[in-house]
Amino acid sequence: MEVYLDNNATTMVDPKVFKAMEPFFCTLYGNPNSLHKFGAGTHPKMVEALNYLYEGINAADEDDIIITANATESNNTVLKGIWIDQILNGSKNHIITSEVEHPSITAVCKFLEAQGVSVTYLPVNEEGIIEAHTVRDFISDDTALVSIMWANNETGKIFPIKEIGAICKEKGVPFHTDATQAIGKIAVDVQACNVTYLSFSAHKFHGPKGVGGLYVKKGYELTPLLHGGEQMGGHRAGTVDVASMVGMGVAMKLAVEHLEFENTEVKRLRDKLEDAILELPETIVIGGKENRTPNTTLISIRGVEGESMLWDMNQKTIGASTGSACASEDLEANPVMNAFGSDSELAHTGVRFSLSRFNTEEQIDYAIEVIKNAVKRLRTISSSYAYTPKDHKSQL
Amino acid sequence: MEVYLDNNATTMVDPKVFKAMEPFFCTLYGNPNSLHKFGAGTHPKMVEALNYLYEGINAADEDDIIITANATESNNTVLKGIWIDQILNGSKNHIITSEVEHPSITAVCKFLEAQGVSVTYLPVNEEGIIEAHTVRDFISDDTALVSIMWANNETGKIFPIKEIGAICKEKGVPFHTDATQAIGKIAVDVQACNVTYLSFSAHKFHGPKGVGGLYVKKGYELTPLLHGGEQMGGHRAGTVDVASMVGMGVAMKLAVEHLEFENTEVKRLRDKLEDAILELPETIVIGGKENRTPNTTLISIRGVEGESMLWDMNQKTIGASTGSACASEDLEANPVMNAFGSDSELAHTGVRFSLSRFNTEEQIDYAIEVIKNAVKRLRTISSSYAYTPKDHKSQL
Repeated sequence: MEVYLDNNATTMVDPKVFKAMEPFFCTLYGNPNSLHKFGAGTHPKMVEALNYLYEGINAADEDDIIITANATESNNTVLKGIWIDQILNGSKNHIITSEVEHPSITAVCKFLEAQGVSVTYLPVNEEGIIEAHTVRDFISDDTALVSIMWANNETGKIFPIKEIGAICKEKGVPFHTDATQAIGKIAVDVQACNVTYLSFSAHKFHGPKGVGGLYVKKGYELTPLLHGGEQMGGHRAGTVDVASMVGMGVAMKLAVEHLEFENTEVKRLRDKLEDAILELPETIVIGGKENRTPNTTLISIRGVEGESMLWDMNQKTIGASTGSACASEDLEANPVMNAFGSDSELAHTGVRFSLSRFNTEEQIDYAIEVIKNAVKRLRTISSSYAYTPKDHKSQL
Repeated sequence: MEVYLDNNATTMVDPKVFKAMEPFFCTLYGNPNSLHKFGAGTHPKMVEALNYLYEGINAADEDDIIITANATESNNTVLKGIWIDQILNGSKNHIITSEVEHPSITAVCKFLEAQGVSVTYLPVNEEGIIEAHTVRDFISDDTALVSIMWANNETGKIFPIKEIGAICKEKGVPFHTDATQAIGKIAVDVQACNVTYLSFSAHKFHGPKGVGGLYVKKGYELTPLLHGGEQMGGHRAGTVDVASMVGMGVAMKLAVEHLEFENTEVKRLRDKLEDAILELPETIVIGGKENRTPNTTLISIRGVEGESMLWDMNQKTIGASTGSACASEDLEANPVMNAFGSDSELAHTGVRFSLSRFNTEEQIDYAIEVIKNAVKRLRTISSSYAYTPKDHKSQL
């Protein structure tokens, strides 16, 4: 049995999404900027896709949603746009973000620091949450942007976006949120949360890879990251990838339709898997169980290296992760677990399971069996677990 | 009959390319950075695709080919990377380009000028060619980059890339070329031409939209445009769009295999179409017939507005263009024709026909008939043609 439990890394394209994309490869292949029917014939489905995106995040008609290659591009567009407009060619010099953002935020911030920008990295509390008041504490007249993710990719922890949005509005500072791990898992409403910029990637909610979006509130236009043609109203040049844009629109529509299912059935399976693993001694959910996306759990299994678990599970055709796929090729300690203040041993013991609406009860039952056997085997051969002062080993 | 003659705007995805892409949507959908089989299972086809790209442009093993969203992103990556590394954080302040580049070069250059960078725009001669000696004339110690396209998107004119590359090598200045309109039409060899950076887009050679490439010669790494994860060796962050990357690789392989066909059969059909139009009075090939890509002709038909021609042809399901699709939604005069010094009337009379290996003899025969009828009709109702001093109207 194949069991894919790494949906925070990427998801299967929903077959309905693929079906919607298919005509745009070999039939309706025109450039949408062309005046002839091969080009203009693509417009109705593109408009429909945009409407699904607007509805999915409750954007206002006068706001903009720019189609990008992925959330990484959306994040780079916002941070570098703010840098060029407000810092390099303006009078501000400060950005606030968190210690647990995706690398496409933190790596840009490191780059901006090298260019002389001042960056504040807000810590998470013991529950893995950014506390909204810390944003207020650090905002100054010099602050050009606050960028805080909506939900964390590793723990699934949901941050107080509404409160942070209200603070930014009160202080007159633009508020960007990377909602890549929120879309399709919880309700996302840019208006209720006073969001200025919002990033997302289609492939995290059963759309195709290679396409994402950037919501821009009216009046907050940025210098584009991609200069060139007049696509996206001049805000993002490059021939529009119609198939992917249409696919992302349909994926958003389906994601919204499945939100209830995600928060009942997917959550039930996640909890079943999690509870079964927590029956093993010395296992903890990093950040605790509250305020999480319904599909995610990051579990520390003392004495078991995350990579060893992945290996054992992979032998049984189960896919999971030790954390962000963007960093999983190197074997460094998980930065989110570091942010929690985990000791260096514990920081290597995290395994992230992230489910989707395509997982079944049978898959979860099979995964539980495989995981329990793997933990038993790995703890038997674990030098660190053998020498752990607490002797839970006999209980296995 | 449907006849698509706008292949410089975008191309149909070759059904063989689509077939190669298909497994990566709903079956082999893993994130290639993931350690499990769902991710790692994508690697063999990705490696194969990269090999096709390396072979297609004769890159050396130690050089890099970065997968991007399109040539627009590749172009922005080079120009803004050079700006950040050599100008903002370096001691250079000058870029040389041409007057007839794609908007994804010229719009970046305008942006850089606003940031204080000095940009030289080389003119084309009466044959629409950049003369290599003009590059030498303007290179100084201050020059950080020369960026000249390999072939022009509107006229198909091929620029003296080998000579320009030799001059840049001699002067020690990096040489970027936007080869978007060359790949699949003529041989492209980065080593023979001393190219430092080279941009391309898959959708111009029967690959999918939303994916392109950037060749980077070893030792010429740039600050990335997209900071974030470690994808592409840290040179371009963002989850790799495996389906599109594989599609681009196969498209490159097929493009190379069809080069001979392109320069015999596609050229023959282009010439047949062109010769038939040139039988009409007061029609000229902009830039003349020499040194062109085999699939392209930009023809001026005096007294006939390009947009009116497009409309008439579209009624008969023939797709063509007045020039770059990236600018064709606005009805400004064609900038390439302006660069030739066309008078303002002539500048609106250009129609670009760009063929592909999927066009047939029957399609070209049909197109010739439709075009001749359209010219006749439009000249009959044309105010400018009625008042033209040369009275060729009676010949129609």
